[in-house]
Amino acid sequence: MPVITDPEIIRDRLTAVRENMQREGVDVCVVPTDDFHQSEYSGAYFQTRRYLTGFTGSAGTLVLSADDAALFTDGRYFVQAALQIKGTGITLMKMGQEGVPDMMQYLAGKSGGDRVIGFDGRTVAYGSGARMAEIFGGHVRADFDPVKGLWPDRPPFPDSAVYELPERWTGESRSSKLSRIRAAMAASGCGASLVASLDDIAWILNLRGNDVECNPVFMAYLWIGKETAVLFANEDAFSAQIRGELEADGVGLKPYADAYEEIRELAGREHCVMLDPRRTNFRLVSIVAGECGVYQCENPSVLMKAVKNDTETACLKDVHADDGAAVFRFSLWLKDQMRRMAAGEDICITELDAADKLDSLRAQIPDFIELSFPTISAYGANAAQLHYAPTKENCARLRPEGMLLVDSGGQYRRGTTDITRTWALGPVSEDMKRHFTLTLAGMLALGNAHFLKGVDGYGLDILARGPLWNEHVDYRCGTGHGVGFCLNVHEAPNGFRWHRIRGVNELAVQEPGMVTSDEPGVYVDGQYGIRIENLMLCEKDLTNEYGTWLKFRFLTMVPVDRDLIDKKYLRQEDVTRLNAYHRQVYETLAPKLTEEERTQLAVQTAPI
Amino acid sequence: MPVITDPEIIRDRLTAVRENMQREGVDVCVVPTDDFHQSEYSGAYFQTRRYLTGFTGSAGTLVLSADDAALFTDGRYFVQAALQIKGTGITLMKMGQEGVPDMMQYLAGKSGGDRVIGFDGRTVAYGSGARMAEIFGGHVRADFDPVKGLWPDRPPFPDSAVYELPERWTGESRSSKLSRIRAAMAASGCGASLVASLDDIAWILNLRGNDVECNPVFMAYLWIGKETAVLFANEDAFSAQIRGELEADGVGLKPYADAYEEIRELAGREHCVMLDPRRTNFRLVSIVAGECGVYQCENPSVLMKAVKNDTETACLKDVHADDGAAVFRFSLWLKDQMRRMAAGEDICITELDAADKLDSLRAQIPDFIELSFPTISAYGANAAQLHYAPTKENCARLRPEGMLLVDSGGQYRRGTTDITRTWALGPVSEDMKRHFTLTLAGMLALGNAHFLKGVDGYGLDILARGPLWNEHVDYRCGTGHGVGFCLNVHEAPNGFRWHRIRGVNELAVQEPGMVTSDEPGVYVDGQYGIRIENLMLCEKDLTNEYGTWLKFRFLTMVPVDRDLIDKKYLRQEDVTRLNAYHRQVYETLAPKLTEEERTQLAVQTAPI
Repeated sequence: MPVITDPEIIRDRLTAVRENMQREGVDVCVVPTDDFHQSEYSGAYFQTRRYLTGFTGSAGTLVLSADDAALFTDGRYFVQAALQIKGTGITLMKMGQEGVPDMMQYLAGKSGGDRVIGFDGRTVAYGSGARMAEIFGGHVRADFDPVKGLWPDRPPFPDSAVYELPERWTGESRSSKLSRIRAAMAASGCGASLVASLDDIAWILNLRGNDVECNPVFMAYLWIGKETAVLFANEDAFSAQIRGELEADGVGLKPYADAYEEIRELAGREHCVMLDPRRTNFRLVSIVAGECGVYQCENPSVLMKAVKNDTETACLKDVHADDGAAVFRFSLWLKDQMRRMAAGEDICITELDAADKLDSLRAQIPDFIELSFPTISAYGANAAQLHYAPTKENCARLRPEGMLLVDSGGQYRRGTTDITRTWALGPVSEDMKRHFTLTLAGMLALGNAHFLKGVDGYGLDILARGPLWNEHVDYRCGTGHGVGFCLNVHEAPNGFRWHRIRGVNELAVQEPGMVTSDEPGVYVDGQYGIRIENLMLCEKDLTNEYGTWLKFRFLTMVPVDRDLIDKKYLRQEDVTRLNAYHRQVYETLAPKLTEEERTQLAVQTAPI
Repeated sequence: MPVITDPEIIRDRLTAVRENMQREGVDVCVVPTDDFHQSEYSGAYFQTRRYLTGFTGSAGTLVLSADDAALFTDGRYFVQAALQIKGTGITLMKMGQEGVPDMMQYLAGKSGGDRVIGFDGRTVAYGSGARMAEIFGGHVRADFDPVKGLWPDRPPFPDSAVYELPERWTGESRSSKLSRIRAAMAASGCGASLVASLDDIAWILNLRGNDVECNPVFMAYLWIGKETAVLFANEDAFSAQIRGELEADGVGLKPYADAYEEIRELAGREHCVMLDPRRTNFRLVSIVAGECGVYQCENPSVLMKAVKNDTETACLKDVHADDGAAVFRFSLWLKDQMRRMAAGEDICITELDAADKLDSLRAQIPDFIELSFPTISAYGANAAQLHYAPTKENCARLRPEGMLLVDSGGQYRRGTTDITRTWALGPVSEDMKRHFTLTLAGMLALGNAHFLKGVDGYGLDILARGPLWNEHVDYRCGTGHGVGFCLNVHEAPNGFRWHRIRGVNELAVQEPGMVTSDEPGVYVDGQYGIRIENLMLCEKDLTNEYGTWLKFRFLTMVPVDRDLIDKKYLRQEDVTRLNAYHRQVYETLAPKLTEEERTQLAVQTAPI
């Protein structure tokens, strides 16, 4: 059961916001979920929409007017949102359902005459802010704070300490990264570049923080000029040593709160500034555009960051071996518990207990910082929910039958991991084995692809989906996403997907050094869920008269559960691939294990 | 050896053009290869660039100024063009080579001050015309005819008779097609639509002609208003009956030569006109844009035409059976000749003789009109050239060894065919067998794909390429193209390709009713060429909780040469697919054959 806030309290909060609106002359107020940097995850301070609606999901927007309140959210949250907003007077707008207007259409119905739209322009990406402004014919208050004077117990603004990631792990100095970005600026005729996305800033400066759970970033804006740069951030979070080093690289530090005014001044001295309209908020872009020309493009650091250098890839191979050993140990513990349970021992293990066990094993690995996302430990039918998260209040007890799906990962100073394994806890059905085996065949087919440089993630996706598609089974999500280096576990611009929406979800061409997940699955509503996920490094294979050939190397090193494999669903090439992978797993993990663990690993990785 | 025109003659022609330029105040003159309708193939009347340069290739543009002459062409033609323009004073610009400016950069170097660019705006698509105008700051003469008063023996303007394709073959009336286009016009707020692409016009009106070799189209522009339409074409080409039927459907007929003036007037009465900027010439778009708003989009008929209706697909299955029987008979004849040759009989057969034999078999099929393209019959190393065409002067003699590649097709009133088979003429090498077998595996894998509606041609391409890519072998071209119905053998917007250039070569999502070729191959320079091509019809498979599943049905029905298959390179699923295809070939062709032919077919299609 999700958390329910008393609907009376929500009603009171909405009334207070409406008073704010009236006072400020705002007719329609929009409250999105974003933080000021269009991050994928936003911290507690930014949960205004949650505070005003009671709805705790990770995606949704509140639209409020004098008479109406509407919450727009997507299919993942229809059930949960309906429960959480019951009795509040808010109407649930089920996005994508027939007959439900999209938010922009809905806003068009609310616009007209001199009606004014208001929102906090820092929580809206430039593109959607501009569309809302257009719909309201320019009657916009982009500095409207709906919770001004409310929310007494609002969580504090994040202020974690900032630390340095040394070059022995990053493989490239801050000054080298800055010169590469300046070269891109110069090529586009820009005198400066404004970076607002937190992972880009962390990567460029070789700094990390802890302002967003599971994402080692810190709140900041970065202005890169031709010779110097200015970092707007919480000055107290920086040690004297880091300040000194930044200064030596020509990077000045200024208060986060001064960013907007200072950037207005800086932009005033430029002819043209480069920025990424999908990763910079509406208010900031409006400020820059008011002062000088704006060259809109993807931040050049996005592609630079995605292509890991030799130092980073060496670290990754290393940390994945440690991470794999932890996950393997967890699987031994899990299977052992289940055997004992089946034998009649009175053991109680919940999904959350299993997650805690794995998390604690990972925490012992050198250079561990935190999890790269909250561990998904989903038993039985729970695993059919793509984004299931067990909670203390609501979590299943494991029994020695069926399957447990565990999707987990760690943030280490030596890199980021993300792995899913699905294990049999006891007897399983024929269908489970068939679906598991076909999922495995797809995962291995993609991981063993040979392809010419120039292929993007849409061109390879069918390799993973093919064995399931041949049986008319699909998983309703992408096959894979890019992964950062001691940074966000979801990182643009690489990935694998089949359903292309032109201009919206474009995927980059695969390049040597990119790290991408390969995670097909099967999700049977109300019954079970299967996912097998390995991270892969793209590598150069060879060059011949046809061009440069690329291939993948699996980074993730954990055996695939043989109890779920039925060989009759595998082609000969699948068997060869599985055996080759397991041989590699054995060679990588064996030196990290005890004698006894090694024996078990040998059994689990023996050729099938 | 390509045809060489005396360089003195070319020099004289260029001098005459320069006199025209001086008289008309044109400083830089551009002569492209297009006809007035941006057709893929242009007839003899339109070969101005060929006349002025001596270069006979199918792609290339001449840029002429008082002191300079440059011919831009692509990699296919570097050798041929160099030979053909030797001594003419024209510089060859090898497009795509390092250090060679692209044509627009080159033109930028020629622009400046009041310098004027001139070209025949009918031979330039709107997009590139607009760019050239921009480069020259608007100093454009888009009505400049470089060969005015020259070219005494210019071939006549095409004037073939126009005939009707009855509804028993097209499956949809002219008036139904016009209403569907009018619905698209209305949805975009346009009062009219201007269609300049010849295959769209032929499809919309259920009419065909013979103005372009191998493409059953006729020269025309079509103006579609809300209630009536005007067809600008050679009036003499229409019978009284067809005129009457057009009139009954509200389509008036006016002279082709009056199109531009009449369209200016028609546009003057509209608020906004829909047109396709990539399929309409610069002069015509400029005229319309001078009178009213222009809504630029792909012609709605492009997608309508690509999705064949039930009548068309029934006709296609039928005509492919006839076409397949002819190709099969040809293969029996070919193999028999080779056996006799090997036994010492004195037989002389050239590539061209083989093509003639096949063409004559096809000509006997009911409803045959003409070839859908000149038959490619390429022996040995000649087959490694992707666009090889044997000529009387230059054509190899077949010997009972190695392979013959034959790519051919017919235009029938019941549809268009396009098939490639590669046959062993005698002993072949291990490499040939390996490459042939891997090509076959790829062709079958794509043809047997199961996929969700929404996948485009980039998402499926790797199925055909995969077996070759695993051995680091590629073919340097797309895997397949759309095919018209008694229309152009290359038809947008469907196809299979891997190398996507955003906004340039986008491929449509596959839809039931689309016909696409599936033609992987291997081309080893100086040694041999292999291609196996089947046409496929996209069909609905089933609908379940994941969406609508699609699959392909092979239309092409001709056995694949077993003498070139080595089973050790096939996976079990490839064997199953081949046997299933051959069973279908047997069932389809058997009723069309003599007893003796049938016996041979049974042998050739028996399970391997």
